[in-house]
Amino acid sequence: LLPNTAASTRLSQVNDHLTQPNSTDSKMAAKITVHWLEDSRAQRILWLLEELGLDYEVKRYSRDPKTLLAPKELADVHPLGKSPVVTIVEDGKTLTLAESGAIVEFIVERYGSNLSIPASSSDMQARADYLYWLHWAEGSGMLPLMFSIVFAQLPKQGPWLAKPLLNGVSYGAMSQFVLPRLKENFRFIEQSLAGKDYFAGGKLTGADIMMSFIAEGLESSPLPNDKYPNIFRWYNSMLERTAYKKALEKGGKNDLGRFT
Amino acid sequence: LLPNTAASTRLSQVNDHLTQPNSTDSKMAAKITVHWLEDSRAQRILWLLEELGLDYEVKRYSRDPKTLLAPKELADVHPLGKSPVVTIVEDGKTLTLAESGAIVEFIVERYGSNLSIPASSSDMQARADYLYWLHWAEGSGMLPLMFSIVFAQLPKQGPWLAKPLLNGVSYGAMSQFVLPRLKENFRFIEQSLAGKDYFAGGKLTGADIMMSFIAEGLESSPLPNDKYPNIFRWYNSMLERTAYKKALEKGGKNDLGRFT
Repeated sequence: LLPNTAASTRLSQVNDHLTQPNSTDSKMAAKITVHWLEDSRAQRILWLLEELGLDYEVKRYSRDPKTLLAPKELADVHPLGKSPVVTIVEDGKTLTLAESGAIVEFIVERYGSNLSIPASSSDMQARADYLYWLHWAEGSGMLPLMFSIVFAQLPKQGPWLAKPLLNGVSYGAMSQFVLPRLKENFRFIEQSLAGKDYFAGGKLTGADIMMSFIAEGLESSPLPNDKYPNIFRWYNSMLERTAYKKALEKGGKNDLGRFT
Repeated sequence: LLPNTAASTRLSQVNDHLTQPNSTDSKMAAKITVHWLEDSRAQRILWLLEELGLDYEVKRYSRDPKTLLAPKELADVHPLGKSPVVTIVEDGKTLTLAESGAIVEFIVERYGSNLSIPASSSDMQARADYLYWLHWAEGSGMLPLMFSIVFAQLPKQGPWLAKPLLNGVSYGAMSQFVLPRLKENFRFIEQSLAGKDYFAGGKLTGADIMMSFIAEGLESSPLPNDKYPNIFRWYNSMLERTAYKKALEKGGKNDLGRFT
């Protein structure tokens, strides 16, 4: 195969632009509000904004203590009524954006490309890893975690007469269906982090920020945490970051154990 | 607010590069193989490659007829053993990439940026919409669809003695938990497509390709299809595309009804 010269040149030009830090103007011009729900994926958006040194406002929401669902007020911000949602006002235009992966990717590329791996990276594997984990966290990653929450809640939310029955179904589904998939996922992450400090390209990126919620899910999952030393080595180094700690002060620590 | 000149200039330079069609060299140099599983999210990757006019090879896999799971051979391609997975050989380097959203985003930006909305788009809403639906399809979009599959399969895969019981649990979970969320999602898509031919920026993008699997899910869901005229107007216009039809010839039509 011939080397792919035209494409490489084009890509390295793009690279030059994308790796330049964004101007202070750009950061000053955007007014960002994070609609933050307790014990949710919203906490990592605060961490993202702290890593980028951006100013932002936090609007706090609490879950319904019985159903653990988001409150109706969030539906006034975005039709699906979930969190995180951000509103961004830039040059008089207002944008409302939901879906964690989209928020991280949008904010990183617009206000802080230092947390991305540019499309033009000569390291095709690094860019692929970046996009992979960015999408994986909310796709393949969250799926068995959400199943474990739903099957744990099934006996609690169902009619009390049916509780013994629902406990049986929950136990069966967890042991035969959910736990094997959880184990498979975390074994895969564990192997992917062997000898690595970050998920993509040897540096902190939006992929690490997206994957932090998955690590929190592991912490409060029924899986034995000591089986995943690479995941916790990586996760603990995230917890030690100044930006992570600042974000905790502005939001708060997730208690995901309440869902299981 | 002052206009954000430094950032705009930088972004429009990036734009110039990203909107140039990729060189023929680039397309020729990459050898792409799609690991295609019947009745799966893999079909839309063939459609993507047809839209971009790229050469590719299809390796076909069948589901286990009893469990409906992917066959073990897929685990030889990627540790999680799911489909789609693509392998890309470029300049002697091999990349293996899974996760639909990551595959679409990677291939579009590397080999066919005409199906993207560049980061530098002056229309911040268009870029946000593009990223939103790209991530939403496999995050918020697939979640209730996967729950509807799991609760439909619960009585079928459980021990036969427990079938009446599992049918009851399945019915309760579907009516109280899954269907309300499915309806909410499809009502939201329906509203988002009002007066629009595409999901983002007024043109066909990777976001439409990602969302096509969600429309297939609606088709075989228990929801009445006639309540979603905008979704089906959009979806039918996708089905009429030459690239979509070519992809069907190389892969095959999904039968998602077998899961419910």
